[in-house]
Amino acid sequence: MEHILSQLDAVSFDFVTHELILLDQTRLPRERIFLRISDVDELCAAIRRLAVRGAPAIGVAAALGLWAATLRIPAHEPDSFVNCVKAQAHLLASARPTAVNLCWALNRMIDRMTAARMDGLDEMKCALAQEALAIWKEDAVVCRAIGTHGLSLLTNRMGILTHCNAGHLATSCYGTALAPIYMGLEQGISFHIYADETRPLLQGARLTCSELSAAGVDVTLLCDNMAATLMKAGKVNAVLVGCDRVARNGDTANKIGTLGIAVLARHFGIPFYVCAPLSTIDMRCPDGNHIIIEQRDPSEVTSLWYKFPMAPDDISVYNPAFDVTDQDLITAFVTEQGVIVPPFERKFEAILERKGEN
Amino acid sequence: MEHILSQLDAVSFDFVTHELILLDQTRLPRERIFLRISDVDELCAAIRRLAVRGAPAIGVAAALGLWAATLRIPAHEPDSFVNCVKAQAHLLASARPTAVNLCWALNRMIDRMTAARMDGLDEMKCALAQEALAIWKEDAVVCRAIGTHGLSLLTNRMGILTHCNAGHLATSCYGTALAPIYMGLEQGISFHIYADETRPLLQGARLTCSELSAAGVDVTLLCDNMAATLMKAGKVNAVLVGCDRVARNGDTANKIGTLGIAVLARHFGIPFYVCAPLSTIDMRCPDGNHIIIEQRDPSEVTSLWYKFPMAPDDISVYNPAFDVTDQDLITAFVTEQGVIVPPFERKFEAILERKGEN
Repeated sequence: MEHILSQLDAVSFDFVTHELILLDQTRLPRERIFLRISDVDELCAAIRRLAVRGAPAIGVAAALGLWAATLRIPAHEPDSFVNCVKAQAHLLASARPTAVNLCWALNRMIDRMTAARMDGLDEMKCALAQEALAIWKEDAVVCRAIGTHGLSLLTNRMGILTHCNAGHLATSCYGTALAPIYMGLEQGISFHIYADETRPLLQGARLTCSELSAAGVDVTLLCDNMAATLMKAGKVNAVLVGCDRVARNGDTANKIGTLGIAVLARHFGIPFYVCAPLSTIDMRCPDGNHIIIEQRDPSEVTSLWYKFPMAPDDISVYNPAFDVTDQDLITAFVTEQGVIVPPFERKFEAILERKGEN
Repeated sequence: MEHILSQLDAVSFDFVTHELILLDQTRLPRERIFLRISDVDELCAAIRRLAVRGAPAIGVAAALGLWAATLRIPAHEPDSFVNCVKAQAHLLASARPTAVNLCWALNRMIDRMTAARMDGLDEMKCALAQEALAIWKEDAVVCRAIGTHGLSLLTNRMGILTHCNAGHLATSCYGTALAPIYMGLEQGISFHIYADETRPLLQGARLTCSELSAAGVDVTLLCDNMAATLMKAGKVNAVLVGCDRVARNGDTANKIGTLGIAVLARHFGIPFYVCAPLSTIDMRCPDGNHIIIEQRDPSEVTSLWYKFPMAPDDISVYNPAFDVTDQDLITAFVTEQGVIVPPFERKFEAILERKGEN
């Protein structure tokens, strides 16, 4: 899976040693350290400490990691093998219970193995390998499709603001929000990207800036609170963000700070696009009020991501990981099936029905 | 000048040794280090490296520091004394050329000394002492007056969002934006304060949180990008900010991030108040387009305020120190002469004419 960013692959696989390879994202941009994993406990720890993050990347890592682990199961008969794989998948699923893609990928692995149960042990092992590789490959295809559809909304030399990291490092290919940028790069269409640093964990500064500059994209880093004056100065022609969950009415949960950018974009008359695989649309969730927002540890704010105190001891801290952007602030969703403009709910229903997922 | 926050005085004076005492704000919140200064070169260095910051505090520090320095001038006849004082004031004025209060305070010192020129050396020294103490005292009076007028706009238990530090540490008393909070505290009226951390230099986290928690005020720290979801959740009843320069039409330059908060406040229907001494209204400046915005060093963003890299080397950085909030986003100005609601220009003219400054 070679491409312009393969030196920064969040997830890859060594087909000689059969190990999952993760780029440790907690060390970026200072160091490029790769972890070699063949054990479920190690993978759980890596996911928990955010060595791999981004819902699609976590899903792919779980699939490939589970496959690697199953190759090392000493069982010689099908029943004990199945039980062991299920136990490992169950353990992995608990690593980040809120990440939808993690369970989704593990369920696909188990279902595929179960379907091959009657054909014996070797067939089950083969099925697990095929499903892991399919999940990996499909993610790349979805990224490219989102990129192609997103690119249709943009023109050469536009200034584009993005938030957090919904790029190569969050997926197994071109990302979601950054996919149109990379597809443009392939076609000789260039943009000026403005990357919000994205407090508190600085995924914009550490990850988005790393991957865009490695790809040769023209990128400028700014603090989150500078976006308003940048927009006022006419530097931003479009906003592209990823998302974590989309409610049926189009309300969208994404990294904290997204709502503020959407309000600013509306004020300054700038289109605001959410780039999302269809799998992130949760039709069982009626609207944003039903999306539970995780409150994270105060030390992320008071100590930055290095461990130096930035605020008085014991100060009260407000640290939601996500916010919900109201659907009426969203110009369009960019999915692998095309661009979806309002009214969202009816169009979500139609597109998911066509895809057989509703 | 004892009050509830005297242990955090940004500027004070030792009347035995005749030294200016500055709380080194670059060391907060980790350490409370006081600098003793009687030399103009040392004071210039302290101002440049932001050991003292906030326009009013810089003005007071310059006045007291110049006084301390003049006490050490060996001249025994008036002419050489005057030349020496003027040279020192000239040097000090260059420390931060954009801070209006610095020149304003030094000009007052020189004018007062010049007025006493005919009365001899001792009278000039006495005049310098009196003017320095007057500047110090007046700043405290202005802060309290802003606090009283601001408090009239608020009610008990309100949630109030503030940005950067326009409090005790930025002035010689209760600050500007935080003055209503402290005046409320004196009267048993309490608020819940939400303090934006204020990237890149974290004055909100380091300074506002330090002084408010030291005073026993209920304060919660948040990252700048969390303000939108906080407002959406109904937690913010008013926004209070300080300012660096107000144009004739009401357009207001303040710490980067202020414009974004003003847009959010408008979107969520929350009043947005700018607390400002009348001296910050610049009637020669027609509107915000004429306010020059300082671009600061990229390392403030890429290395935080400690010196650790947070972004790839050589990344392009957008780092304006201030932004301009359009006058139509401002609910009211809170000045020492009262609350000013739109239309601003006509009211600025009337109030400054009454004060004899226009």
